[in-house]
Amino acid sequence: MILFQSDYTEGACPEIMNRLLETNMEQTPGYSEDEHCMKAAKLIQEACKAPESKVHFLVGGTQTNMTVIGAALRPYQGVISAATGHIHVHETGAVESLGYKVLALPEKEGKLSSAQIDEVCTLHKNDDSFEHMVQPKMVYISQPTELGTLYTKQELEEIRNVCDKHDLYLFVDGARLGYGIAAKGNDVDLENLAALTDVFYIGGTKVGALFGEAVVIRHPALQKDFRYMIKQKGGMLAKGRLLGVQFETLFEDGLYHRVSEHAIRLADKLRDAFVEKGYSFLVENTTNQIFPIMEDSKLEELKENFGFCYQQRMDETHSAVRFCTSWATKEENVDALIAAL
Amino acid sequence: MILFQSDYTEGACPEIMNRLLETNMEQTPGYSEDEHCMKAAKLIQEACKAPESKVHFLVGGTQTNMTVIGAALRPYQGVISAATGHIHVHETGAVESLGYKVLALPEKEGKLSSAQIDEVCTLHKNDDSFEHMVQPKMVYISQPTELGTLYTKQELEEIRNVCDKHDLYLFVDGARLGYGIAAKGNDVDLENLAALTDVFYIGGTKVGALFGEAVVIRHPALQKDFRYMIKQKGGMLAKGRLLGVQFETLFEDGLYHRVSEHAIRLADKLRDAFVEKGYSFLVENTTNQIFPIMEDSKLEELKENFGFCYQQRMDETHSAVRFCTSWATKEENVDALIAAL
Amino acid sequence: MILFQSDYTEGACPEIMNRLLETNMEQTPGYSEDEHCMKAAKLIQEACKAPESKVHFLVGGTQTNMTVIGAALRPYQGVISAATGHIHVHETGAVESLGYKVLALPEKEGKLSSAQIDEVCTLHKNDDSFEHMVQPKMVYISQPTELGTLYTKQELEEIRNVCDKHDLYLFVDGARLGYGIAAKGNDVDLENLAALTDVFYIGGTKVGALFGEAVVIRHPALQKDFRYMIKQKGGMLAKGRLLGVQFETLFEDGLYHRVSEHAIRLADKLRDAFVEKGYSFLVENTTNQIFPIMEDSKLEELKENFGFCYQQRMDETHSAVRFCTSWATKEENVDALIAAL
Amino acid sequence: MILFQSDYTEGACPEIMNRLLETNMEQTPGYSEDEHCMKAAKLIQEACKAPESKVHFLVGGTQTNMTVIGAALRPYQGVISAATGHIHVHETGAVESLGYKVLALPEKEGKLSSAQIDEVCTLHKNDDSFEHMVQPKMVYISQPTELGTLYTKQELEEIRNVCDKHDLYLFVDGARLGYGIAAKGNDVDLENLAALTDVFYIGGTKVGALFGEAVVIRHPALQKDFRYMIKQKGGMLAKGRLLGVQFETLFEDGLYHRVSEHAIRLADKLRDAFVEKGYSFLVENTTNQIFPIMEDSKLEELKENFGFCYQQRMDETHSAVRFCTSWATKEENVDALIAAL
Repeated sequence: MILFQSDYTEGACPEIMNRLLETNMEQTPGYSEDEHCMKAAKLIQEACKAPESKVHFLVGGTQTNMTVIGAALRPYQGVISAATGHIHVHETGAVESLGYKVLALPEKEGKLSSAQIDEVCTLHKNDDSFEHMVQPKMVYISQPTELGTLYTKQELEEIRNVCDKHDLYLFVDGARLGYGIAAKGNDVDLENLAALTDVFYIGGTKVGALFGEAVVIRHPALQKDFRYMIKQKGGMLAKGRLLGVQFETLFEDGLYHRVSEHAIRLADKLRDAFVEKGYSFLVENTTNQIFPIMEDSKLEELKENFGFCYQQRMDETHSAVRFCTSWATKEENVDALIAAL
Repeated sequence: MILFQSDYTEGACPEIMNRLLETNMEQTPGYSEDEHCMKAAKLIQEACKAPESKVHFLVGGTQTNMTVIGAALRPYQGVISAATGHIHVHETGAVESLGYKVLALPEKEGKLSSAQIDEVCTLHKNDDSFEHMVQPKMVYISQPTELGTLYTKQELEEIRNVCDKHDLYLFVDGARLGYGIAAKGNDVDLENLAALTDVFYIGGTKVGALFGEAVVIRHPALQKDFRYMIKQKGGMLAKGRLLGVQFETLFEDGLYHRVSEHAIRLADKLRDAFVEKGYSFLVENTTNQIFPIMEDSKLEELKENFGFCYQQRMDETHSAVRFCTSWATKEENVDALIAAL
Repeated sequence: MILFQSDYTEGACPEIMNRLLETNMEQTPGYSEDEHCMKAAKLIQEACKAPESKVHFLVGGTQTNMTVIGAALRPYQGVISAATGHIHVHETGAVESLGYKVLALPEKEGKLSSAQIDEVCTLHKNDDSFEHMVQPKMVYISQPTELGTLYTKQELEEIRNVCDKHDLYLFVDGARLGYGIAAKGNDVDLENLAALTDVFYIGGTKVGALFGEAVVIRHPALQKDFRYMIKQKGGMLAKGRLLGVQFETLFEDGLYHRVSEHAIRLADKLRDAFVEKGYSFLVENTTNQIFPIMEDSKLEELKENFGFCYQQRMDETHSAVRFCTSWATKEENVDALIAAL
Repeated sequence: MILFQSDYTEGACPEIMNRLLETNMEQTPGYSEDEHCMKAAKLIQEACKAPESKVHFLVGGTQTNMTVIGAALRPYQGVISAATGHIHVHETGAVESLGYKVLALPEKEGKLSSAQIDEVCTLHKNDDSFEHMVQPKMVYISQPTELGTLYTKQELEEIRNVCDKHDLYLFVDGARLGYGIAAKGNDVDLENLAALTDVFYIGGTKVGALFGEAVVIRHPALQKDFRYMIKQKGGMLAKGRLLGVQFETLFEDGLYHRVSEHAIRLADKLRDAFVEKGYSFLVENTTNQIFPIMEDSKLEELKENFGFCYQQRMDETHSAVRFCTSWATKEENVDALIAAL
């Protein structure tokens, strides 16, 4: 059985495993106050050209989303998200569990537009009963989105402008950020993200690490006391250096981008094969997730040898499914899948 | 200026004011453990033909909704509501502030169907990642709805069946319940509600009282320890007897229904006048809220002498607005409005 | 049976009942945006000589405490309170239900000292693991305290200084404030409280009103968006004018202080009687709560005709109990109790 | 510099590192639904002789505590803890952040007695205003405690009995459980814990693993829907198999106990050296934490070469400090410290 169902089916890049082994018996202070974390933070600040930002390391995405959102909102404020946003759909209500409403808006291929955000905020301010409604205070988007699509630099700039107009924080979930940066046609890099957002994160779990998300905080109000928040939300790893070592390895010589490019090359190969066989897609994209629409009978057949995700029913005999590549995907497995199509 | 903008523009029925005056210097224990509360609870149990139910008195609707929902849900569970539901739109995220997600569904004239609820629950159970999503556990509907429409007895029975199928609590918000019961064509009475729901409440604030909502709890799991919840959520009135005295007065000889009928008679008179003048409505209903669609120029003119609520824009020159009658509405004021139409 | 068990056994002053009756059929906007609330707020600003403060009206004490504390704290911050503080002991964990820790300190006759607060904050800042502990951010005290004692003006000034030193908010619970102001030996008035605190409230429920607490907010950070908080926490009364009318009546010609003085005169009379009969007290105070230590046999005897609160066991044959007077206490009832001693 | 300041200064046992390396490129499903997790769960059920228990794997202690407590309590319920308990002191209010009060009791050498618990619950039930107070529902204790002391089997049985009497859950935090089991004089093993508690956990982070806590749930009410809770609280690791592989390695041939015994042997050697040099202790214990009371001048001297924790000031010239050994402690380092004493 060959799994294409997610980008977290394997462990970590050999480089990371080796570094963990090398540093295993070092004695360090706990809770990310060690030299590996400090060095990794510095490397990320440099990669983002954002020396005044603060960089923190957390274990996983849901934890990161709830910690960041909890650090930003007052009890009566909410976070705007696409209806397909991970925080709205796939975190068992973690944001609500902290007391905050997710203000879900209809999306187009997983993306929000600046016009939608502007309209929601304007309606709120003009409503006579505005104090009876949750006040929008943050925008949460993902790059790439849940559907593997990407915001362009211009779209992000427009969203930034609307956020400034309405005094909103802009937060970008980068759980798969590496794959977005490496994708064809993408024009948004780490430096852009650091410049345009108040806070974003660089996903490690799905991009080469065993686990770990690096949060880059630019807005001073969000920087303040952030470690209290990490601890309270259960994200303060005793052996924080495990996160430091991993991100140090990923960012000291471009490994993060190299492994992302590998995944994208294989995704493109697989995508081209789907196109060639005449399949259409639930959504067109250029990142590591591919959403072909296929006959149910064909899916039954593929299921015997390949793992993939069921996405949604399209008609009585067709469904959309998801195939993912990752840093760990072997070319021979992609070839086997292509052969089976 | 004559106000039709809500059903809480005046104080309380004279009968209630007199009773509060008569009992003013009685000495009673606090926190609703007095004889007025006990008698009022008994009268309501009788009116509902539900002697095993527990009746509690709270001050207002938002407080009641959050206390009931908080008593029912585990942290990872959510409450299904129409997208127009009061808890989703007009309570500043009170339900989320307790940690629970509102699972908003599209509505039709303010109402949910049993089929929608069934579908959501079935999808949840069949999803591979069901544990990554909020588990539906309660259905919240309003009778009448925010748009003044009513569930029929059959619709409620169907919803009850779906709730039983999926192990959901059914909770009915009756902030305007009296006006629903008195409305033409309604076939749902207190006894039906007590029989079909796990918990519902009888609104006093909008139906003759100064304030107060009487919660009728049928399900034993929701009855248990409910007073702890009331206290924690800030709803335990020191002079609880104020609630007892009011509901005692409303229910000892049918006052609750008499004042509701008054409001409905005047609403019908006003509604007929709108029809006669050729106006159409945002939604057709028979309760105390009327939603005519009017020319903006006409609204400007009316605004000089009448208060009403802006509801939504319909086209460039027309808007839907809301006029409410209540227990306190004077026939001469309705006549004045009709004359001005 | 004559009740001395609390200061909320009756309704409201006749002046308030009359005013509610007079204004009963006025039509006003809801949610405390009416003229009565505006006038009452202005009267209170004047009484406090604090024209820049914001005044809001809530229904009860627990609700007020949770709304104010929720408006002040970030998720990782806590509120310092005496171990006997109402928020720590008697609100079913309402503060914790919002997500905040109550940092309880040992008290002396119900009071905290500035030195204790200073020590807690200094220890926090100097601890290597400070981010693993809740950050103190607010001080909550009551005037009078749960034990009927009073902070002197000098003590409040010292606490204010410590709050400034450590960047803490100072919040005073004035549920029984009128009785404190009227007490012998008290040197703290409304003006002092407005000047020395960031937020405090003037209790109506126990001092002449049917219900209601007037929150006076001086600190701009707490003023911002406070109405959102009131709505979310269930404290936004639909007929907010009920609160406005009551506080208007209490503050337009000194009624609040007159009814407080009545209660204190009778408390002093009763206290003197206890002294004369040779009883000692759990705590010495001059407000409307009296805590004599009495033989259990005597208490059994009194119980037949008088209601009072059991406080605590002192030894095998003696207990401390509580007798309260209020705006509503009749002199003949106090005389009857004195005769029975 | 040689660190004795905590038991998480190194990575993981070589056996674990090797296994992670061996399994690194295996493809597995995510979220702990892989075979390693299943096998590890089975090994732990067997070690506990508790085949009906459910075993889940979480990343760290604070996360585990909040997830378990959140799964157990209703909003108005609280958890009893020693005043020195980790949840009360060192988790930045994580339990309160979920809405629950920690009911802190004075401890004796870090331990609670069954009599204390009984008294608190009895007082609650007998109080007239019990609904105004948080209802005790769970007891949280640590084995070993924060001060390295141990509950005897008899003490645990007595606490179990009190929990049964008052319908409380018993939850044991075993972050350092291995060191407790290996300690001299201990008579509580995994089987006893599984039999006497409703839920407990076996700490990996401090006992040989990179990270990870294995929660063993015996009570059916806590088993239900626990994975929803894990996901919501941010503890659902995408690559859950990392936890499975580690606990599989620790429990397949007794590695967990062997590494614990190593730490205890070296702790005993160090403890004996302190005794021999004439030092007394803040608390006497037999586990891997040692709390000698030392001259400040001596501590200054040691600080140049050794890391340890400052615990508390004893008098003007003496302080209590903490030295920890662990699975990773090297005998030569212990010898160096002994030489420096």
